[in-house]
Amino acid sequence: MTMRAWRFDALSSLSDLSVHSEPMPAPQRGEVLVKVRAVSLNYRDIAPILGRYVWPAKPGLIPCSDAAGEIVSVGEGVTVFRPGDRVVSSFHARWLGGRPPAGLMLESYGTGSDGWLTEYKVVSQEAVVPLPGNVSFEDGATLPCAAVTAWNALSGSTPMRAGQTVLTLGTGGVSMFAVQLAKVVGTTVISTTSSAEKAKRLKALGADHIVSYKDIPNWGRYIKDDITSGTGVDCVVEVGGPATINQSLDAVRWGGEVVLVGFLSSDNPGIDYFHLKGSGAVVRSVAVGDRPMLEDLVRAWTASGLKPVIDSVFPFAHAREAFDHLMAGGHVGKIVITLSD
Amino acid sequence: MTMRAWRFDALSSLSDLSVHSEPMPAPQRGEVLVKVRAVSLNYRDIAPILGRYVWPAKPGLIPCSDAAGEIVSVGEGVTVFRPGDRVVSSFHARWLGGRPPAGLMLESYGTGSDGWLTEYKVVSQEAVVPLPGNVSFEDGATLPCAAVTAWNALSGSTPMRAGQTVLTLGTGGVSMFAVQLAKVVGTTVISTTSSAEKAKRLKALGADHIVSYKDIPNWGRYIKDDITSGTGVDCVVEVGGPATINQSLDAVRWGGEVVLVGFLSSDNPGIDYFHLKGSGAVVRSVAVGDRPMLEDLVRAWTASGLKPVIDSVFPFAHAREAFDHLMAGGHVGKIVITLSD
Amino acid sequence: MTMRAWRFDALSSLSDLSVHSEPMPAPQRGEVLVKVRAVSLNYRDIAPILGRYVWPAKPGLIPCSDAAGEIVSVGEGVTVFRPGDRVVSSFHARWLGGRPPAGLMLESYGTGSDGWLTEYKVVSQEAVVPLPGNVSFEDGATLPCAAVTAWNALSGSTPMRAGQTVLTLGTGGVSMFAVQLAKVVGTTVISTTSSAEKAKRLKALGADHIVSYKDIPNWGRYIKDDITSGTGVDCVVEVGGPATINQSLDAVRWGGEVVLVGFLSSDNPGIDYFHLKGSGAVVRSVAVGDRPMLEDLVRAWTASGLKPVIDSVFPFAHAREAFDHLMAGGHVGKIVITLSD
Amino acid sequence: MTMRAWRFDALSSLSDLSVHSEPMPAPQRGEVLVKVRAVSLNYRDIAPILGRYVWPAKPGLIPCSDAAGEIVSVGEGVTVFRPGDRVVSSFHARWLGGRPPAGLMLESYGTGSDGWLTEYKVVSQEAVVPLPGNVSFEDGATLPCAAVTAWNALSGSTPMRAGQTVLTLGTGGVSMFAVQLAKVVGTTVISTTSSAEKAKRLKALGADHIVSYKDIPNWGRYIKDDITSGTGVDCVVEVGGPATINQSLDAVRWGGEVVLVGFLSSDNPGIDYFHLKGSGAVVRSVAVGDRPMLEDLVRAWTASGLKPVIDSVFPFAHAREAFDHLMAGGHVGKIVITLSD
Repeated sequence: MTMRAWRFDALSSLSDLSVHSEPMPAPQRGEVLVKVRAVSLNYRDIAPILGRYVWPAKPGLIPCSDAAGEIVSVGEGVTVFRPGDRVVSSFHARWLGGRPPAGLMLESYGTGSDGWLTEYKVVSQEAVVPLPGNVSFEDGATLPCAAVTAWNALSGSTPMRAGQTVLTLGTGGVSMFAVQLAKVVGTTVISTTSSAEKAKRLKALGADHIVSYKDIPNWGRYIKDDITSGTGVDCVVEVGGPATINQSLDAVRWGGEVVLVGFLSSDNPGIDYFHLKGSGAVVRSVAVGDRPMLEDLVRAWTASGLKPVIDSVFPFAHAREAFDHLMAGGHVGKIVITLSD
Repeated sequence: MTMRAWRFDALSSLSDLSVHSEPMPAPQRGEVLVKVRAVSLNYRDIAPILGRYVWPAKPGLIPCSDAAGEIVSVGEGVTVFRPGDRVVSSFHARWLGGRPPAGLMLESYGTGSDGWLTEYKVVSQEAVVPLPGNVSFEDGATLPCAAVTAWNALSGSTPMRAGQTVLTLGTGGVSMFAVQLAKVVGTTVISTTSSAEKAKRLKALGADHIVSYKDIPNWGRYIKDDITSGTGVDCVVEVGGPATINQSLDAVRWGGEVVLVGFLSSDNPGIDYFHLKGSGAVVRSVAVGDRPMLEDLVRAWTASGLKPVIDSVFPFAHAREAFDHLMAGGHVGKIVITLSD
Repeated sequence: MTMRAWRFDALSSLSDLSVHSEPMPAPQRGEVLVKVRAVSLNYRDIAPILGRYVWPAKPGLIPCSDAAGEIVSVGEGVTVFRPGDRVVSSFHARWLGGRPPAGLMLESYGTGSDGWLTEYKVVSQEAVVPLPGNVSFEDGATLPCAAVTAWNALSGSTPMRAGQTVLTLGTGGVSMFAVQLAKVVGTTVISTTSSAEKAKRLKALGADHIVSYKDIPNWGRYIKDDITSGTGVDCVVEVGGPATINQSLDAVRWGGEVVLVGFLSSDNPGIDYFHLKGSGAVVRSVAVGDRPMLEDLVRAWTASGLKPVIDSVFPFAHAREAFDHLMAGGHVGKIVITLSD
Repeated sequence: MTMRAWRFDALSSLSDLSVHSEPMPAPQRGEVLVKVRAVSLNYRDIAPILGRYVWPAKPGLIPCSDAAGEIVSVGEGVTVFRPGDRVVSSFHARWLGGRPPAGLMLESYGTGSDGWLTEYKVVSQEAVVPLPGNVSFEDGATLPCAAVTAWNALSGSTPMRAGQTVLTLGTGGVSMFAVQLAKVVGTTVISTTSSAEKAKRLKALGADHIVSYKDIPNWGRYIKDDITSGTGVDCVVEVGGPATINQSLDAVRWGGEVVLVGFLSSDNPGIDYFHLKGSGAVVRSVAVGDRPMLEDLVRAWTASGLKPVIDSVFPFAHAREAFDHLMAGGHVGKIVITLSD
């Protein structure tokens, strides 16, 4: 029996992505065979091609970290899953709790080991979590990387809840999940964007205040002084990286949190020590999250009846077009690849 | 200058409550003079009369712990408040953070020291917190005891948020605040009651599931098995006390929390050790909360635009009727006493 | 190739324990083959025989949860372990972080699945953690159940440290580990015992105060009033269960923790609700701990250079004598079974 | 009745410090009159003179934040203190728990309000905490600023305990307290210094590893790679500020904490965003700590029988010499001013 899988045969351009016919894998003890039903893309899936990935990336691998599917068969000793069970993939296959394992980022799907853009995949029973029946495969496949990152950002040293204020930047995947998740826990959400159309979408997701960083270049200080009356926000989901960190430090309250997610921007002016210390902030670097964080996010997501913002859905046979679309950069929301039944 | 204040001249019946004319107090250094604008009643305000109060209670005191008002004047060195500022009282005047001070319950308003059922009151600047302008005095006066207790119950070892399930019992003050607050942080709420009319009110506050403890005598096990599919709830706001604790232990999940609030019921069958241990629960006793907890609740309350359930409002001159109404027990929601401008 | 393993062919008496010759197991993908070098016994290993085990227990299984050994070979894809690595077993093979998996106690080693009293054993790479070179196999084998339980008790809602006071009961395995671990984090330790000789041993482990529960029947209240000057202790490692819980509630401070470990005692008078609530305690039930807890304990243990109290060491061939010795009950400290190189 | 107090009549040099005769203050309601028995100096006491203080400083004030003394009399309504009680001052007189009050740093003793270098002082009952009888006034007076800062650094997102590794820099006040406190909670301590003599003192306080930053210019990476075998330390008490932060980020483990204490160094090369994010650290800025933190530190200190490193003790009449000695910079340990009985 064979199956089809996409692989980056090299890492020089998107044309290196090609479909292969491969033998169907079989689960060993403690493993499950998953029939993949949907995959979603993240910027990190093309970052190696763009020379923007900060860890090493191997050629020849199946890309993609985010998937949902059904269990087809289980290996010896697997008691928690049965054929037919719906599951979603965990971003870090072996970060199961506690401190991250050594070499966490070196084994990542797509860059260090085979990912999920395949018809079938065998993984450890610990590498997937149940996906409730009221979440579609397409929706479920959007959660493992961006939504878990957003949930981690909102669940750190002080779990964000009603009475607290969250600042999100732009309309990338993590930021839009952060708006949705920050609203279901009751926080006040301030979002930056430069476009009136994107402002409308952020409002529709629940953002309470929109700040145009084009109209207000010192948006960090403006948010602190004018929107939070001098207090500052409780949490910044900092996806901009070096180009925005200084304004994020302006916006946060003493004792609030700036969560470092981003490595996008190329402008890199550096951070002044006294600005960092004077902000009184807790600055926390995150790398998606562990398996319990995914379980927690899936519980929150499902109970809240949330729907992800999906930009477009491509069939598995047209996966490369999905990557082209991601590369083009005009999307708002997640790009999903679907595998029909 | 004089002012009027109600006092329990003795603690034998409600007829011991009478109004007195007293000299207007003046703030000393670090103190504020508050013009009281609204007071709310709690069961604890009549518990000494009923012989149901578990700590000592002194006669001759001004009753009531819950009030809102405005600052009239401030003592030397007070920089955080100015005349005209709106404030709400802190239940424990000296529990300002960290471990509770020795003798916490012996100095309580109304039972150990003069409370708030008075036209004017001088307290330390640390004994009140700001009340935002979009919350009325009547609404603000309902928060210090019951709402803070509910918020404390939902904010303990694991702060309740979307993805978690909260169980409330009945329609007492703490339970109704718990339903409202549990909803603004996104949890799923299960509420018990015996009356169809009260079920309607709980639904209106946001409760997702209503369980009639009359129809389902083993409601604890039913909630675990049928409503949470065998998992159990994450938090029980246990107001029933000895009569309901065993069912609460049935309903909670392993690692979930049972927060002990209540001392109401008279039925007291005791708790079996193996039931307690076997539940896997964290059982936590609370005594309202400290000042930071009140500040946090006021932030959450205000940002969420919540409105308390108010049963009835009495003018200050008719305060005894408010107490009669509380004693009669037919109310649903808070009983408020208002002092016109 | 064959190996020897002990099995409880039935669960009626210790004579049901017999040695078997069995085929050598082989690791599959993600698994490791461990050559067992030492095993330690816990009361739970004989509880089914005594009819005192509170979960179901299957006959025919290899007993014992606690072991240390070396990796002999690894399955495909195992990168974190290599042949020769020293490891210690995790009590719950699949509780890897976050909430415990469903059926946690039903899959326990020795009662629900094959345990560690065998020459070789294959497990998932997630079911063991590294054992540093400065801890012997015999010492390492004492840690998975009792020491992790003690560490969990001291690391709960408020991690115990210098400035806090811990109460331990008696000289069972968990209690002696609790004394040692409570001392290395700097707490003041109060220990109860009835024998002068055991008092000496507790003192040698670091206990600061010894209370004879024979001489002082109301030891709970005595400890609160006399030893902690009315404050109460911060944490009780409650191993006695139903017979001691009420005194533990007397001894604890408002906001302190009573950690429920024990299911030993047969005397079971029940707990009064008002006593539980009035204590102001957080009562927390523990079931050993997850894998991150074991990693944390191993780090603390190793860095501190601690040595476990070992009562006696038996060779593998004489394992039944080790069980007889456990059954006799006169031991103080851990009973270890060693497998020579 | 009069008393003597030292005041900085201007802030241009130490010669602006002069002694004044002033009326004895009297406690009002909720206040206590303290007879000061010892005061300790901190770098911040001369920072305004040096133009190195980062907040505004007013002239004419009594300097010093750190003091110990006895209660002489109490105002109306004070029940927690009685004449004769021994107390120590809280660094932030009004940060009593929860979020810091607005204007926290503007009201600091010595720079925004009168400090403790006086024979008698009236403060709110909330501005002092009890000092146990086994700690001398001189020792107690060293704790409010530097020791609380060190304890806060060790008690943040993950309380440091046995099994964790702490890095301290140099032999300033905070660093030496950090070594002592890190040892009483059982951590492994790595300390940097450049002098063999100071290395000896750090060893005597308990430091496990000494690293000479002169001999090993890349000490951050060396500590991670060579001392912690590539893991990194769990906590850096970062007192060096801009000149050392980059090496601290090298030394810390993924998920570990870098606590920003320092504003000393003048070299300020800036921080690269990718270095900050890539470290995986939690970077946390602290400002001493609140009252509960002081209470916790006093409990830990007292129970552990620790002794502060005191460089020298000056009589009250010679306070200016104490300041000269601080300015000269050759001291190791705290400089104390004592007021005889």
